[in-house]
Amino acid sequence: MGESTALRVGVLGARGKVGQAICAAVDAASDLELVAEVDKDDALDDLVAARAQVVVDFTHPDVVMGNLEFLISHGIHAIVGTTGFDEERIARVRGWLDEHPGAGVLIAPNFAIGAVLCMRFAEQAARFFDSVEIVELHHPNKADAPSGTAARTAELIGAARKAAGCADIPDATTSELDGARGAEVGGVRVHSVRLAGLVAHQEVLLGTQGETLTIRHDSLDRSSFAPGVLLGVRGISDRPGLTVGIDPFMDL
Amino acid sequence: MGESTALRVGVLGARGKVGQAICAAVDAASDLELVAEVDKDDALDDLVAARAQVVVDFTHPDVVMGNLEFLISHGIHAIVGTTGFDEERIARVRGWLDEHPGAGVLIAPNFAIGAVLCMRFAEQAARFFDSVEIVELHHPNKADAPSGTAARTAELIGAARKAAGCADIPDATTSELDGARGAEVGGVRVHSVRLAGLVAHQEVLLGTQGETLTIRHDSLDRSSFAPGVLLGVRGISDRPGLTVGIDPFMDL
Amino acid sequence: MGESTALRVGVLGARGKVGQAICAAVDAASDLELVAEVDKDDALDDLVAARAQVVVDFTHPDVVMGNLEFLISHGIHAIVGTTGFDEERIARVRGWLDEHPGAGVLIAPNFAIGAVLCMRFAEQAARFFDSVEIVELHHPNKADAPSGTAARTAELIGAARKAAGCADIPDATTSELDGARGAEVGGVRVHSVRLAGLVAHQEVLLGTQGETLTIRHDSLDRSSFAPGVLLGVRGISDRPGLTVGIDPFMDL
Amino acid sequence: MGESTALRVGVLGARGKVGQAICAAVDAASDLELVAEVDKDDALDDLVAARAQVVVDFTHPDVVMGNLEFLISHGIHAIVGTTGFDEERIARVRGWLDEHPGAGVLIAPNFAIGAVLCMRFAEQAARFFDSVEIVELHHPNKADAPSGTAARTAELIGAARKAAGCADIPDATTSELDGARGAEVGGVRVHSVRLAGLVAHQEVLLGTQGETLTIRHDSLDRSSFAPGVLLGVRGISDRPGLTVGIDPFMDL
Repeated sequence: MGESTALRVGVLGARGKVGQAICAAVDAASDLELVAEVDKDDALDDLVAARAQVVVDFTHPDVVMGNLEFLISHGIHAIVGTTGFDEERIARVRGWLDEHPGAGVLIAPNFAIGAVLCMRFAEQAARFFDSVEIVELHHPNKADAPSGTAARTAELIGAARKAAGCADIPDATTSELDGARGAEVGGVRVHSVRLAGLVAHQEVLLGTQGETLTIRHDSLDRSSFAPGVLLGVRGISDRPGLTVGIDPFMDL
Repeated sequence: MGESTALRVGVLGARGKVGQAICAAVDAASDLELVAEVDKDDALDDLVAARAQVVVDFTHPDVVMGNLEFLISHGIHAIVGTTGFDEERIARVRGWLDEHPGAGVLIAPNFAIGAVLCMRFAEQAARFFDSVEIVELHHPNKADAPSGTAARTAELIGAARKAAGCADIPDATTSELDGARGAEVGGVRVHSVRLAGLVAHQEVLLGTQGETLTIRHDSLDRSSFAPGVLLGVRGISDRPGLTVGIDPFMDL
Repeated sequence: MGESTALRVGVLGARGKVGQAICAAVDAASDLELVAEVDKDDALDDLVAARAQVVVDFTHPDVVMGNLEFLISHGIHAIVGTTGFDEERIARVRGWLDEHPGAGVLIAPNFAIGAVLCMRFAEQAARFFDSVEIVELHHPNKADAPSGTAARTAELIGAARKAAGCADIPDATTSELDGARGAEVGGVRVHSVRLAGLVAHQEVLLGTQGETLTIRHDSLDRSSFAPGVLLGVRGISDRPGLTVGIDPFMDL
Repeated sequence: MGESTALRVGVLGARGKVGQAICAAVDAASDLELVAEVDKDDALDDLVAARAQVVVDFTHPDVVMGNLEFLISHGIHAIVGTTGFDEERIARVRGWLDEHPGAGVLIAPNFAIGAVLCMRFAEQAARFFDSVEIVELHHPNKADAPSGTAARTAELIGAARKAAGCADIPDATTSELDGARGAEVGGVRVHSVRLAGLVAHQEVLLGTQGETLTIRHDSLDRSSFAPGVLLGVRGISDRPGLTVGIDPFMDL
């Protein structure tokens, strides 16, 4: 594909594990051209010199704000997977974007398309079923239980059921061994399995009379963010300003 | 709940297996009142005498058209699970409804809410993944393979991918034992398992780099149509005219 | 099949729900002949008059001991699904059998072949994996969590791992929402899901570096005891004396 | 752990992807000592100089026979994952072992413990169920369908059912879209799913009246051979002569 039509993409944090995977994914896409691979010892000006139109940033909370200020001020779109964005940081990014209304920034805590769809579908389906529970399964080195994604999914389900006026989830348990029925988040029971060999998995179970619906997301390796990042790269020029989360790019 | 506020519901085919289950479900719902149970030896006029506002019809293709003409002409809404509606029959029902614009008719081939959601979510998710396949599993007395629901789901997925300009699903198979890769419907591979002990189940598998999404519907007994029928009963007065399929009642 | 070769089977509690299902299963088996259907208003002597060789008892704790004393003293084999057998009752049955060494009695808390295999395979596999957890899923009317079967499975797994000198199951959880990691039985985490639409299901998950093994049992309706009962009926004449649990009849 | 008690292990093909993973696994095991890492440019004599007691060989069909002749003649045990062993090669290995009866050789086509257990349990369970089918799922770059493991599992199941005198698997299909019911191997239907994001997975479904048993193996990354290799390394000194397949080392 000629340079004239391919979208020019730069990567920040290009020599990190995630950065390398993103470079490979951009390289493999025929409608994208990888024009700059920048890491901590390189100058941000390289991105301008390479005429990057979109830059992907998977770096570090310590440097991401400087990167964003630079990109926005140069009218370069940004797709950001770096963590650590609180209200205050979000407000500062909005401020910069107000001054450069042509630039677009997508900040997402999770680029796995399947995880986003699992959450969305669970939220949509929740009000049609008497019961909903979540089982999330991860490798045994994970420190928190339940996972942040599972807790967020439970909250979305709980809110959807409340808005629809659903009855409480039925549960006749009278004799429970401590912990058997899981943790409760937003009125929804969440169970956390920790198992050697697993990566990151989540199952939302919904049930009503005579039927169940199960929505399961399996993340089998760490490259699962790549398709979501490319979705952002391709769509950002149509979405100036700040977007948080990749959902809006999916036109669900 | 007083008679004044509960919706008055009649059931046609009330002594059949399905009819009995629907009568029980209406009976158990506090916002609905079961006012007439009519079977083949009873008069349709009983429904009028009982002042039924909505009538559920799970009868037989031989009698359902007569039932519908009667109900529509009396301004009674109808929720129809009886099979055998082709284009010609649908046109006749539309004709009757044109003359009685206040009446509403819902005709659905499948009232299982989970099956409808499984199909819908698969269709929505299809364009985000490189690969999609369907595994449907039924009891071994089933005559057709794949199931009608699986074939329909595959067609919806194929159409959604075509509309989104998706690439062909990758498949490097060069050595195949006849049948191993399943049947192809709409460009999607469908596999039919027949197993003693099972009822009716369907799994849509979607995969892209490093992650998969699985949407599974399990129908564990024949009462699984009940929640969908009640959804129709409660919503039909807001939807005059003809509706085919319960999807519009679900506001997805 | 002629009377001369078919095994002559009687059923006690023949008009109960379970009893009817067993009568139907015996009736459908070409190598078995249903010669007596006895319920609470009938005489036990009917079983002798009908020359029953094996009698299936799914009755009630109040009457089962009288039934067994009668059957054993008449040299009739018994397959017993009735509950309530404690050490004392077991000892009394053994006493009767000592006096009638030709008779065989099989008492089993669970006749579902799949449940027995699930437990057995989990026990066998447990020592080869770093991690084991159990997820059991039931309808929301169940009073106890975890299920008796899940607790028993966890104990068997724990004992097998201890006997093999396995290390503790790894778990780096440092921040847990109360209950998220389930209940602990025999050193194994057990999670109890309660969901409308489900019947009785159990999944044992085993994991080690790069791979997992999952053994799942689904009980989809209450007729699942029938194949196990027939296994007992066909094998009991080769196993005089008392057998507890159907495992020995399975020659695993 | 002191050198005096740890088992001395060498690795052939040590710089290949698999070889590196095995070196890491041996290194991490406190009861094993990695004493030699040999690749194609190194001398086999290094293994003798390092006093290796067991050598793991994941090399190439072109060199494995030379390696084995060397190891056996030096009384070093061998754990072999290299492919390409036909009857003739097996016979030659047996010949060498006859002359050095103290040496042990384990040749296995599959070291994944979960895969071996999945196959074994499926074989044991097969005769208790009316129906058995296999669904195997792999990445879309796989050339053959069904997988060798699935075909072998189907043959074992078919043989077990034949030996037990099981009836044919019931199947009322009269209208089939070509391929829907899968391929038939040993009388068992096998379905091959090819999906981006997957690695290597196999599910054996067994069903009888009212219940099903599912045995599923998931291989999530290529390191899944490591635990099986270590099982071989630790057990080989107790099993002189030739062993094919790791099953005997598992004492099932």
